[in-house]
Amino acid sequence: MVVNCFKRHGAETIDTPVFELKDTLTGKYGEEGNKLIYDLEDQGGEMLSLRYDLTVPFARYLAMNKITNIKRYQIAKVYRRDNPSMIRGRYREFYQCDFDIAGVYDPMIPEAECLKIVVEILEELKIGDFIIKLNHKKILDGILAVCKVPTDKFRTVCSSIDKLDKASWDDVELEMVNEKKIDTDIVQKIKSYVCPPALDSSTQLLERFQTDEALQKNSDVVDGLKDVHLLFSYCDIFGISKKVVFDPSLARGIDYYTGCIYEAVLLGMSLDSDNRPQICNGEVPGESTSVGSIAGGGRYDKLVGSLSPKHKQVPCIGVSIGIERIFAVMLQRAEAENRKIRSCETDFFVASAQKNLLKERLRLCRELWDAKYKAEISYKANPRLLDQLQYCEDRGIPYALIIGESELQKGVVKLRHISTREEVFHNA
Amino acid sequence: MVVNCFKRHGAETIDTPVFELKDTLTGKYGEEGNKLIYDLEDQGGEMLSLRYDLTVPFARYLAMNKITNIKRYQIAKVYRRDNPSMIRGRYREFYQCDFDIAGVYDPMIPEAECLKIVVEILEELKIGDFIIKLNHKKILDGILAVCKVPTDKFRTVCSSIDKLDKASWDDVELEMVNEKKIDTDIVQKIKSYVCPPALDSSTQLLERFQTDEALQKNSDVVDGLKDVHLLFSYCDIFGISKKVVFDPSLARGIDYYTGCIYEAVLLGMSLDSDNRPQICNGEVPGESTSVGSIAGGGRYDKLVGSLSPKHKQVPCIGVSIGIERIFAVMLQRAEAENRKIRSCETDFFVASAQKNLLKERLRLCRELWDAKYKAEISYKANPRLLDQLQYCEDRGIPYALIIGESELQKGVVKLRHISTREEVFHNA
Repeated sequence: MVVNCFKRHGAETIDTPVFELKDTLTGKYGEEGNKLIYDLEDQGGEMLSLRYDLTVPFARYLAMNKITNIKRYQIAKVYRRDNPSMIRGRYREFYQCDFDIAGVYDPMIPEAECLKIVVEILEELKIGDFIIKLNHKKILDGILAVCKVPTDKFRTVCSSIDKLDKASWDDVELEMVNEKKIDTDIVQKIKSYVCPPALDSSTQLLERFQTDEALQKNSDVVDGLKDVHLLFSYCDIFGISKKVVFDPSLARGIDYYTGCIYEAVLLGMSLDSDNRPQICNGEVPGESTSVGSIAGGGRYDKLVGSLSPKHKQVPCIGVSIGIERIFAVMLQRAEAENRKIRSCETDFFVASAQKNLLKERLRLCRELWDAKYKAEISYKANPRLLDQLQYCEDRGIPYALIIGESELQKGVVKLRHISTREEVFHNA
Repeated sequence: MVVNCFKRHGAETIDTPVFELKDTLTGKYGEEGNKLIYDLEDQGGEMLSLRYDLTVPFARYLAMNKITNIKRYQIAKVYRRDNPSMIRGRYREFYQCDFDIAGVYDPMIPEAECLKIVVEILEELKIGDFIIKLNHKKILDGILAVCKVPTDKFRTVCSSIDKLDKASWDDVELEMVNEKKIDTDIVQKIKSYVCPPALDSSTQLLERFQTDEALQKNSDVVDGLKDVHLLFSYCDIFGISKKVVFDPSLARGIDYYTGCIYEAVLLGMSLDSDNRPQICNGEVPGESTSVGSIAGGGRYDKLVGSLSPKHKQVPCIGVSIGIERIFAVMLQRAEAENRKIRSCETDFFVASAQKNLLKERLRLCRELWDAKYKAEISYKANPRLLDQLQYCEDRGIPYALIIGESELQKGVVKLRHISTREEVFHNA
C-alpha cells in the first residue's frame, strides 16, 4: 500500500548497503545519536558502521554518483545501539520508510507533494484522525534571533522547544532558564511566539506573524512565511490544507534541516503509563492526546554537499513514514474491534473426508495454483477432516474444498464456507 | 511476483533480526564459511554477528519460540566478509529469498510443493529453459559407503563431487586421489555411480540403481531411492516431472542437509571469461552450458534440534531462490533484445505548453492521484514543453496529458502517446 503510493508519485527505489564508512556517519546525528551507532569489528578492511537512518546513506549515494535529480523511495532497516524496550517500542533494529525528492526546482512544489503523500497514505490506512504540523527552520531561527537568543545557543534552545509535544511549557521553561541559562525575559518572548496564548487557526497565526513588527524586520522570518504561504496555496489545490496546521513550536531534533519541516500526529490516541498507544473514546480533547509522530520530514539542502568531495550541493526534501508505529496502532485497533489480523492470504483449503485421496487432493490443488488461486493442502497422507477444518479456522482461511468418493464419481467438489458452515456443490 | 507465488502456497512471512549471537552462527557453515562471518565490535553487550544466511536464523527462531509447524517465506539480506567482485557477482551483502516448511508430515509432500514453487516462479519469470537436479543425501552417503570411502572422509569427498558442475571429472578425480588420498579403485567406483558413462534418463538411472546388487544391500540407498520414487510420482501429479532430473552427482556443500537436495540450473546460458552470464544461440548442447544454480535447497531435519536447549527436533525443508542472479540474467536478456527496464511505473505525465499553468497542472495531477493513477508533473513553475516530453522519453512514461489555454477553455486535455506521437483530445 505504502509502496503503491510512492510508485503512484513516480518514485523509483534504490537500495543502499546496510554498512557505511564509519566516517560518513560520524557527527551527523547530534551528541546523543552518535553514541548509538553500531560499529563493525575490525576484521581487516575498512572501518564500517551500520546505517543509523536512510537519509545520510541516500545523500552519500547522490554525492558519490553525482546524481543531481531523482525521486526515490526506500523501505529498509536501520540500527541503533540503544537499550531495547519492547514496551516503549524502542528497538535496536527497525524499519524506516522514506520518500525523497532531490533536485533544483521551484519553491514548495516538492514540499506540497510530500505532504500529499503523507495524507494519501494515512487516509488509505484508515488509521484515524490526524494532522500534519508544519513549521519552517527559517521562521524558528528568525524567532530566536528576534528574541535575542545568543547564536551559539540556537541549537540547544531548539532541542528544548522540540520537547513541547511531550512536556508542558512550564517544564520546558524551567529547562531553558535553569539548565541552559537563558534570560527569563527571552524565554517569555519565545513563549509568546511558539506558544501563543490563544490556540489560533493557521491562518490567524500566520496573519499575526505577518503583522508583527519585530518579526517583519527579520529577513529569515519573512522568507519562511512566504514559503509557508505558498505551500498552503498548493495544499489547497491538493485538497489537503485542512490536514495541515502551522505550528511554530515544531522544531524536530535533527540538525540537517534547512527549510520546511513537518510531522504527522494521530489525534484521539493517547499513551498509557507504559507509553503504549491507547484509543480514547473522544472524551479527551484534540492535540494534547497525540500518540506522537507517525511521519515526519523536511528540507535538507546542504547534506549532499557536505558529503561530496567538491561540496556540490543538491537540494533535497523528504518524508519518513513511521511504519512500525502505524502497525502498532492498527494492531491495537484490530484488537479493540476483536478483528484477527491474518498472517497468510490463503483463500481455499483442499480437504478430504475419506482416506486414500491424497493424489486427488494434490491434483485439485495443482489446478488451483496453476489458475493463480491461493490454496493449501494438508501434508499428511490421510488427515482427519476435523483437523483440516480446524486448520482453516485457526488461519482464517475462508473456504474449504472438500472431496470424497461420491463427489469424485459425480465430478463435483463440495465448497464449504468456514465461518457460516454453508455448503454448496460445484462442478470440478 | 516471487512473493505472490509464496503467498499462493499459503506461506506467511516472518522477519528475523540481521544480528544473531555469534555462538549461534559459529560452526554451521563449514571451514570456509565460518571465516566469512561479519562480527560486530564489542561496544558493550552481547557478542553479535551479521547473519550469513536465512536458514540458521529461521531454525534458531523455531527453536527459541518452540514452533513445531509453520510455512514461511523471507526475503532479506545476508552478509559475507568476502572479497567483493562486481564482475563475478560476489557481494558482501546480497538478498536471499527463502521458502521453508517446518513440521512432521508424510514423506515427500512438502518436497513436491517446494519443487512446484521453483517451477512456477522460473516459468512465470520467463527466464528461459531450466531443469531441477534432484538427489538425496542418503543415496549419496550410501554410494560412498558402498564404494568403501572411509566414513571420516565422506564430507571431503562430497565437497569434491560438489565441484562437478564447474569442473570436469578428471580434475575432480585428481583432487580426490592426490589431495584427499582416496584409493584409485574407490574413485573409479564412485565415478561409475555419480558419472555413469551414458547419460541416462532419470527413469533409466533410477532403475539401474534399483537393480544394482551392491547398492540394494545398503539401507540408506534403498530408503533414498524409495523417497525419490515417491517424489517423482507427486511431481507427475503437479505436472513438473519433465523439469526434474535425478542427478547422483549433486552434492550441495552445506552440511545440514539430511534428505532430498535439489538445484535449478538454467540451460542455454553460458559464462563468459569474466564469469558473466551469456546467452547461447542454441549451438552449445544442454547441461554443459549452465550458468550455475539459480535456486536450490533441501531437507534439514536436525538443524532446529541442534539450536534448541532440549534438542527438540523439528523437521524442515526449504528452497532459496537466487533472485540477484535471476535479475542479472533478465537484464542480460533485456539488453540483448534492446528492451529498457524501467525504474519507475508512472503512466501519465501532466504537461503544459504554456506558462502560468502550474495550478492547473497541480489540479489535474491531484485528480489522477486521487483516482489511483500513477502520475507525475514537473516541479518547475514554467517548464519547457520539450523538456517535459524528453523526461517522459527518458523515463519510459507512455502518456503525456498536455493542457493549454485553449484546452482549458474547451474543458479538454490532449493525450499524447510518447513513442508514436499520436495525439487525441479527451474530456477533462
